[in-house]
Parts: sequence; C-alpha cells; structure tokens
Amino acid sequence: MTNKDVRTPASVQDEKSEEAGKSIGWHKAYVEGSRPDVRVPVRQVHLTNGQSVTLYDTSGPYTDPSADTDVRRGLSPLRENWIIARGDTEEYAGRPVRPEDDGVKHTSPRGGLRNLDAVFPGRPRQPRRGRSGQAVTQLAYARRGEITPEMEFVALRENVSPEVVREEIAAGRAVLPANVNHPEIEPMIIGKRFLVKVNANIGNSAVTSSIEEEVEKMTWATRWGADTVMDLSTGRNIHTTREWVLRNSPVPIGTVPLYQALEKVDGKAEELTWDIYKDTVIEQAEQGVDYMTVHAGVRLPYVPLTANRKTGIVSRGGSIMAAWCLAHHKESFLYENFEELCEILAAYDVTYSLGDGLRPGSIADANDEAQFAELKTLGELNRIAKRFHVQTMIEGPGHVPMHKIKENIDLQQEICDEAPFYTLGPLTTDIAPAYDHITSGIGAAMIAWWGTAMLCYVTPKEHLGLPNRDDVKTGVITYKIAAHAADLAKGHPGAQEWDDALSDARFEFRWEDQFNLALDPDTAREFHDETLPAEPAKTAHFCSMCGPKFCSMKISQDIRREHGGSRAEIEEGMAQKSQEFAAAGNRVYLPIAD
Amino acid sequence: MTNKDVRTPASVQDEKSEEAGKSIGWHKAYVEGSRPDVRVPVRQVHLTNGQSVTLYDTSGPYTDPSADTDVRRGLSPLRENWIIARGDTEEYAGRPVRPEDDGVKHTSPRGGLRNLDAVFPGRPRQPRRGRSGQAVTQLAYARRGEITPEMEFVALRENVSPEVVREEIAAGRAVLPANVNHPEIEPMIIGKRFLVKVNANIGNSAVTSSIEEEVEKMTWATRWGADTVMDLSTGRNIHTTREWVLRNSPVPIGTVPLYQALEKVDGKAEELTWDIYKDTVIEQAEQGVDYMTVHAGVRLPYVPLTANRKTGIVSRGGSIMAAWCLAHHKESFLYENFEELCEILAAYDVTYSLGDGLRPGSIADANDEAQFAELKTLGELNRIAKRFHVQTMIEGPGHVPMHKIKENIDLQQEICDEAPFYTLGPLTTDIAPAYDHITSGIGAAMIAWWGTAMLCYVTPKEHLGLPNRDDVKTGVITYKIAAHAADLAKGHPGAQEWDDALSDARFEFRWEDQFNLALDPDTAREFHDETLPAEPAKTAHFCSMCGPKFCSMKISQDIRREHGGSRAEIEEGMAQKSQEFAAAGNRVYLPIAD
Repeated sequence: MTNKDVRTPASVQDEKSEEAGKSIGWHKAYVEGSRPDVRVPVRQVHLTNGQSVTLYDTSGPYTDPSADTDVRRGLSPLRENWIIARGDTEEYAGRPVRPEDDGVKHTSPRGGLRNLDAVFPGRPRQPRRGRSGQAVTQLAYARRGEITPEMEFVALRENVSPEVVREEIAAGRAVLPANVNHPEIEPMIIGKRFLVKVNANIGNSAVTSSIEEEVEKMTWATRWGADTVMDLSTGRNIHTTREWVLRNSPVPIGTVPLYQALEKVDGKAEELTWDIYKDTVIEQAEQGVDYMTVHAGVRLPYVPLTANRKTGIVSRGGSIMAAWCLAHHKESFLYENFEELCEILAAYDVTYSLGDGLRPGSIADANDEAQFAELKTLGELNRIAKRFHVQTMIEGPGHVPMHKIKENIDLQQEICDEAPFYTLGPLTTDIAPAYDHITSGIGAAMIAWWGTAMLCYVTPKEHLGLPNRDDVKTGVITYKIAAHAADLAKGHPGAQEWDDALSDARFEFRWEDQFNLALDPDTAREFHDETLPAEPAKTAHFCSMCGPKFCSMKISQDIRREHGGSRAEIEEGMAQKSQEFAAAGNRVYLPIAD
Repeated sequence: MTNKDVRTPASVQDEKSEEAGKSIGWHKAYVEGSRPDVRVPVRQVHLTNGQSVTLYDTSGPYTDPSADTDVRRGLSPLRENWIIARGDTEEYAGRPVRPEDDGVKHTSPRGGLRNLDAVFPGRPRQPRRGRSGQAVTQLAYARRGEITPEMEFVALRENVSPEVVREEIAAGRAVLPANVNHPEIEPMIIGKRFLVKVNANIGNSAVTSSIEEEVEKMTWATRWGADTVMDLSTGRNIHTTREWVLRNSPVPIGTVPLYQALEKVDGKAEELTWDIYKDTVIEQAEQGVDYMTVHAGVRLPYVPLTANRKTGIVSRGGSIMAAWCLAHHKESFLYENFEELCEILAAYDVTYSLGDGLRPGSIADANDEAQFAELKTLGELNRIAKRFHVQTMIEGPGHVPMHKIKENIDLQQEICDEAPFYTLGPLTTDIAPAYDHITSGIGAAMIAWWGTAMLCYVTPKEHLGLPNRDDVKTGVITYKIAAHAADLAKGHPGAQEWDDALSDARFEFRWEDQFNLALDPDTAREFHDETLPAEPAKTAHFCSMCGPKFCSMKISQDIRREHGGSRAEIEEGMAQKSQEFAAAGNRVYLPIAD
C-alpha cells in the first residue's frame, strides 16, 4: 500500500464531478423499489465494450456526485419516514449526556475533545424508542408477516425476493441491524443465505487518533467495502466520537458497551455494576448503535476452564467479565440480567452480537472446553433474546487451525438454532505477526463458505499495534476476498458474474475494465503501470496469460462455432484450421510466466 | 513492505558477525547425521527465557557466519563425494555451449550479457551422468532399499526416520529432486507425509532484470523460506543466468525447458522439434537443473476441449504445445517421445514436474473436461516415468473456487498413484488483481491440508507484471503461512511447537521472542515499534491481548496449580482467590481491541 491509497472523505467528495466519475470507469446508481424512497445504491462499472456490471455498494452517499454531504451536518435520515410511518415508536427526552460519558474523569470537561469542534454540530435530535417498551424490531415485524421498507431494500440489494428476506429474519437465521435512532443507514442483512458480510473495527484510544480520524476511518472502510463498522473506542471522547461516527455512517455501527462502562469506573472491573452497564447501553441505544457485543456467556463456572490454556482469556470483554466474576465470586451480572437487557434492546431494535469472551487466543487453545461451554450458553441466551423479539447473532473465534474450523460453525449452527455466525478470522496459525490479515483471511474464507454470515476483519497490525488507514484498507480488501470466495463456493446467485466479467476483460486484454472491476482498482492499475509498457501492443506481449490473439484458443473457438458439438466434427475442423494457422505464420504471444 | 526489507546477498553476508547473530536472536546451527558430512542446517532461535526453538532453514550457507561464500565462486559442492562414492556416474565432455543457448540470435555473442562479468567464473566442471545411461535416481536407490546420504539428510531435516523417507520415495509418494550435476544443494523432500514446501518463481525477460538480479532474487527467496526456486527466464542470457543461479543455489532449481527451446526457434512454436527440445533438456540437465516442467499432457485431442472456455489456455507451456499440435495437426512431440525423455532424465536424476498446460485460468473454467482429460494423461505418463525410475510430481491449478478444490487433489492422488501434487495456488476468485497472493493463499492452504506436497507461490503482481523483490518476499511469506497452516491441519509432528512457542512468548509479553519467532521478524518489529511505546510497562498496557499480569488468568492458573483437577476444588479455590483479588486492588490490563 502506498500513500496514494489514502483518501480522506474530503477527497472522496473531490471525485464527485461527472467528469471524475467517468474517468474512473464507474458511477453510483440506484435501483428503485416499490416506492420512490426505496433507492438501493449500486456501483455501476462501465466497460469499454459498452456493457456494464452492477456491483454491491457500501460506500454511502459520499461517492454520489449528486449527494450534498457534509460530515458536520451528517447524512440524511433515509429511514426516518419509514420509522415514523410504522407509528410504534415515540420520541422522548432521553438520558442526559454526562461528562463521564466522554471519560472526563480523566480530563477537564471540554479539554479532552479534539478536532471537528468536538460536539457534533448537526441537526438537533431526540431519541426514539418503542411505545411503552414494545418490541419495534425487524424480527417482530417479520414474525408478524410484515415486509418493511428495510426488508425490501435489502431484497433489492441482495437480488432476492422480499419474502425470502422476511422468512430468514423471522426464522432468526438473519439479522437486519437497524436501530430506530440510526435512520441514516442504508439497510443491509446478515445471514447465511445472503452475501457474506465484512465488519471493520475502528476506535480511538487514550494515546492515538482523533475524532476526525475515526470518522475518516469509517468512510474509508466503507469505501473499500466494509458492510458494518464497530467503534471500539476506549479512550477519551468516547460518546462524542460515536456521535460523529453514527451521524455520518451509511452502514450499521456496532459497539461493545462494556468498554465504555469500564471507562466510567476508571478501568476497575470490580467496580462495574448492572446499573452502570444498563445506563451505558441506553446511552448508546439512544445514539443509534445498531448492534452491541454482549459478553453474557462468560459465566463464573467457566473461568476455571481457562486455567490450563496456553493464552488464557484473550477477549477484552471476556477478561473484564471474568475479572468481575472473580472479584465478587458471583455469577455475571450480564447473564443474571439478560432478560431486562432484552427489553431495552427490543425497544430500539438494537441487535445482539453475543460475544465469545472465551474464544481461543492461540492454536493450542482452539475448540476447548471453555470455548464450547460458553457457546452452549450463547445458545441459551439466543433463545431468550428471541422470546423478546431481539435480533441476535453469535460471535465466534479466534485462533483455530484449519481442521478444527468446521466444528465451530457446525456446533454454532446447531446450538444457536442457525442464528447468524459472526467470526473473527479465524487465524489458522500463530507464527506470522504482521501478516495476520492473511493467516485469518484463510480461515475466514473457509468458515464463511461453511456458513458464517459476517466476518470481522483482522488487519496486518493485529497483535502489534493500532491499525492506520493503510492497514484498514488492507484488512477490508483481504476480507472482501474471503467473503467473495465464500459467496462463490456457496453458489450465491450472481456472485460469479463479477469473476466472469473480470476474466472476460482479462481474456480480451481490456486492461481498463480489469482495473475498474478489481476490488482495488488503484493498486491494480499502479502495479500494472509499474512494470508493463503502456502501449497496447507491448501490453499484449507481456501479459501473464494468453489473450484473444493467441491462435490455439481462437482457432478452437472458431472450430466449435463452425462445426458444432461432436468430437469428430471438431477434429476435422482442426485439421483444416492447422493449415490456415501455418499459412498465416502466426506466432505465439508470450506471457511472462507459466 | 518497505525498502528496509530489501537485502542483497551482500547485506546478508554483512550480518554474519557473531555479534549480529546474537543481536537478531537466532543463529545458524547444524544437526549432525551418521557421518560428519551430513550436516543439516537449522535456524536456532534463542528466547529470552533461556530456551531455544529449532526451525527448518532454507537460507543456505549465506546465513552462516563461518561459511565463506562468494557468488563468483559458487557454493561448495556438498553432495559431490556422495555422488562419486556411489560409483554409478561418470564425467564426460558434455554438450558444447552454443551461442543460441543464450539467445544470441537476437544479439551479438557477448553484447547481450549483462553484469557480474557475464559467464560464470567459478571452478571448471564437467557434466556427470549415469554410466551407460543407467538410472541414478533417488527413486532407483530407494526401490533397491538403499538409504542415501540425501535421504538421511532430509530425514534429519523433517525429523522422521530415514526409512520413512526411503519408503515414501520408493512408493512414488515423494520426490527428492537432486540432479547429479547440482551437488551444491542441501537435500529436501516433497511429499504429503512431509512438511508442505513452497516454490518461488524467478526469471528474467527480454526487457527487465539482469543476471545479478536473478541470483539475488534466488537468495532472497530462500532467505524467506522458499524450498525450491524455478528459473522461468525467457529473455536473453538464459543459459548463463541459469548457470549463475545453479552454482549459487542451496535449493533445487526447476525450469521449463520448453521456454528456452522456444527462444532457440525465435518464438515460433511451429518450428519446435523434438531434437531441439531434447538438446535443451540435455543442456539443462548437464548444468544441474533438478526438476523440469514438461507439458506432455497437452495432447492434440484435448485442444478442442478448450474451445468453449472463458479464458482458453493460460499456461504458457500449454499454449506453446497446443499451438504446435495445431500447426502440424500432429500429436504432441513430448507425448510421442516421452519414453526417450525418461531415459535422459533418469541418467541425471532430473525429476519430472508434469505440467498442467490445460489448467483453468478463471473460476468459470475450473474442473472442466479439458483439465481432467490432461490429468488422466499425466497419470499415464507418471506410470511410464516410474518404469524408468524417474522421480515424478504432478502440477495442478490454477483458478478454482473453494468448493471445487478438494476434487482436484482427490482425483490427482487417485489418477497419479499418489505422486506428489504441486499446485499454483489455486486462486479462489478472479476479482482481486494486485492481491492474488491472498486469493491464492487461501486455496493453497486448503489444498495443502488435503494433500498437496508443494505450493507454487503467487505474488501480488500476478496478472499485472513482473514481481520485484518486495513482491517475491510477500509471495514467499504468504505461501509459508499457507504451508504451515496446512502442516498444522495435517497434524504434522512438531509443527505446532512453533505456534506454541510464539503464543507462549505473546502470553508472557516477551516481545523480542515474538519477533524472532515470527515468519518475518523485521516487519513484525517495525509494525510494533510504529504504534506502541517502547517502554515495557506501556507495552503491556496497550498490547492487543491480555497478558500474564491479567488477573483472571493468573488467578485461575494459580488455582489449578494449587487445587488440582476437580471442578469442586477449583471453585472453592476461586472463592478464596476472589477475596485476595479484591484485597490487592488489581485492575484489568487494557488491550486495544476486543
């Protein structure tokens, strides 16, 4: 990756002119649904042969030249009318924002806020929730047989019928994370019958990165294909950063409320209480967080099961909860209060991401007793959540060697009634720090083929430090590869069209089309220009495969066209063509490597 | 990758001082066999806890401070005495080197040679071959029940008994590529019961790179773990470049003789003849090429089978042979003369790598009739080769979606009597030019788990241009990850020790040990230093996992140690410990991400 790849949201906007849109070979388009406000964004790639290819697009209005975006104002609330029209939610005063929400125990009330004038300056808003605590979730609607505009939106996006979307959500096999307080999102769905999704983690910490950087990381990640973004901030300005991210995010935002709760008690796990946690969940739900990781499966009796592990507990949330359980020698307050938590999440349509706090942190610890004990509890919690109509997905590992991966997805699907699995990698070996996007991309592709619905990316910096924007891009691209490889292997309808379009372009030496169809057009173009001459003729000579001018293919294609199917006919044609070939004095075009 | 990673063989030599060896945390060591000249190189990593870890080492004498290496002299002929002692080979005058061997049809006899004073200046040598054409192959010895020094060497290297090595070679399930004219190599073995191996391609072309660059690429690739190197040069100085590479290579060298043969007929496939090809094979065998890709499976009747493919024939060798077959409307001269070719290869112990000239070049073409028709012929040719005691491996695809990978290895193993499979990737999607090391690394890991013995690397430049040294490194590292992930999944004895050692170091915050145990210590260290403070205390605070100071693990470990195995005992201990924990006022150490 080079610095050329790094673009701020501002530079994304710079590209919005019609001219720029044309020169880069694609433009933002919309597929219209049954009503004018259901407009599904797509990336329309224009090929030099006059055809076009339509690709799934996660980049939001930022790549639409006609959209007037401004990070200080936030995105338009696309879903607001849908939510209001349902008539089952109400605005209310909401929880007052407190200094400690931004970690001001550590600093002066405003002194800690950095950049973008700190507090989000966009339109004033009041939080919204289900009337008298009723479940206003996509799951509840789906179970009642309703197809919401959100469901229609994702059906168009996935190229399936809205009824399939409704069925999968109703059965709990898919989730559509869409907090009623996050009307800015373009709805998306997570489930094994749909395209495999990718999550990118962002998040500031006490020593690095500003609010502005986090907002830019979010738009950067979605530009390259992130389907959701988790804000894992742990440092200062945690509330304000999240507000900026939410108001500008076209994709669902996930969080781990426990991280902020821990900040509120100055990092002392034993001082956590259910009340502090609950208050934090409400705070985040009112802001619009679409899904929350909840480590309610880390139960007191499971902690001793980690005693003989090589790397103990490696999940931050898991270790916080284990520390709390040990300090009080009590069952987890998350497990004990899970039903009340369900009621809160149902009122905002926050989706559960039941965390795997006891996931293995090394090859040696994969698929052990602690991990599977927690998984069993997640299955139990999943059934409780469903009673409250809360959409639920299940998080998975971690570090797992290839031969132990399938057991993870098979057990999860069985134990959790086919709830969507959301896995971190898994990393297939421990020996390659600085390349864990690759060690984990391998495992991610495999587990997604076998049924994982969403993959949490891993960047090259995993285990070593905080990812910068190059790392975010590398992580997203690697995981889009894994996800798409899985879509192909699952035989997802339409997935192969993308590969076919690129392979056709390759076969026909349409280099610009290859670049524009590539997951990362910039780097593909840069690599090509680095070593290959620009003139078309030389390009043909030094390409690493044989193109249309290569006689054997051309001749055999001609033959098949001319002589139909039977082997004898084709062979007769070949004898004929061989004479023409010799007469024409054709020579083989030379690729660079076998 | 940054320029810091780029090291020439000269800079490798600079590191040879004892002091440098210590500061980088590892040194070259040797495991001695039954005789003093069987000395197997290993990489001994010294941990800060006083322990050490022994890793497989492919880097050759260049990383041995006590070895006096000079690329102008070449490496010492380690195997020479073993070969002479067998008494079944003879030196002979050899084929005279002709101007056209270096492609001088295109240039003046010497004018084309660049750098390093062109012709290799090392010790004069005469070629060697089996007396009166007898088979002097490791396969022949293994079948006679002989354990050669080469077999003992690889047994020590792989940590198995020499008898296992002999058995696997005798059964044709493994090859030990070791031309009698390449005494410089440190023997290695390719077979599914052994560690998965990685090949790196190098090779100049008419417009890029000099002889010197190719020699440096070879030492660079082996430094990062390449087990064999293929010289795919197609431009000028093809003979001389190969001589430099062979004389300096500690690993087996593979080639595609057809490439040089085509140069000799000025790139006109139809002018190729069996005599020109045979002469080229002898030329290369006399130089010491250890294995040769032979596309003898591209038969005339299979060419029409590629007519309806999306990307036709993408193998360079395959397309050359298809062009020849079409031009003459004759059966392939490689197929027709295969037995004579076997006699030649047997006399030098050149190993066959039966090429997959009809491999798929796109997802759409995977596992098609053309591909599997050729595979069936490769099975037939494998059996012929074995009659002549020629060691044989089989090349495999290519572009294959994940769900079609297993069929490739299963069919190959069945059809080719378990001969070692040597695959290029496979690439699991076509949509990511510039990231095909990753699209293919996924497929490579999977197919190696299922039995592929050697993986041919793919670099980020695949489909786009010629790899530079950064690309070579990235390709090798990616494929070492795939190979090791497969070794783990196959349960290769000892493979997990490496992961365990690194995970232990991670758990105990031994950062230097993590770096030194990493596949790429330089990049791991660089990434760490980029974002994390250097002081040990801060390091602990901001690591992305929970370390030994984290109470829950420590406490539960203590408990397990103190109270033994039963759940009741542990729980009792936990109650006790929870009080101590509270009293100590411990707080959770905060990793950066969940």
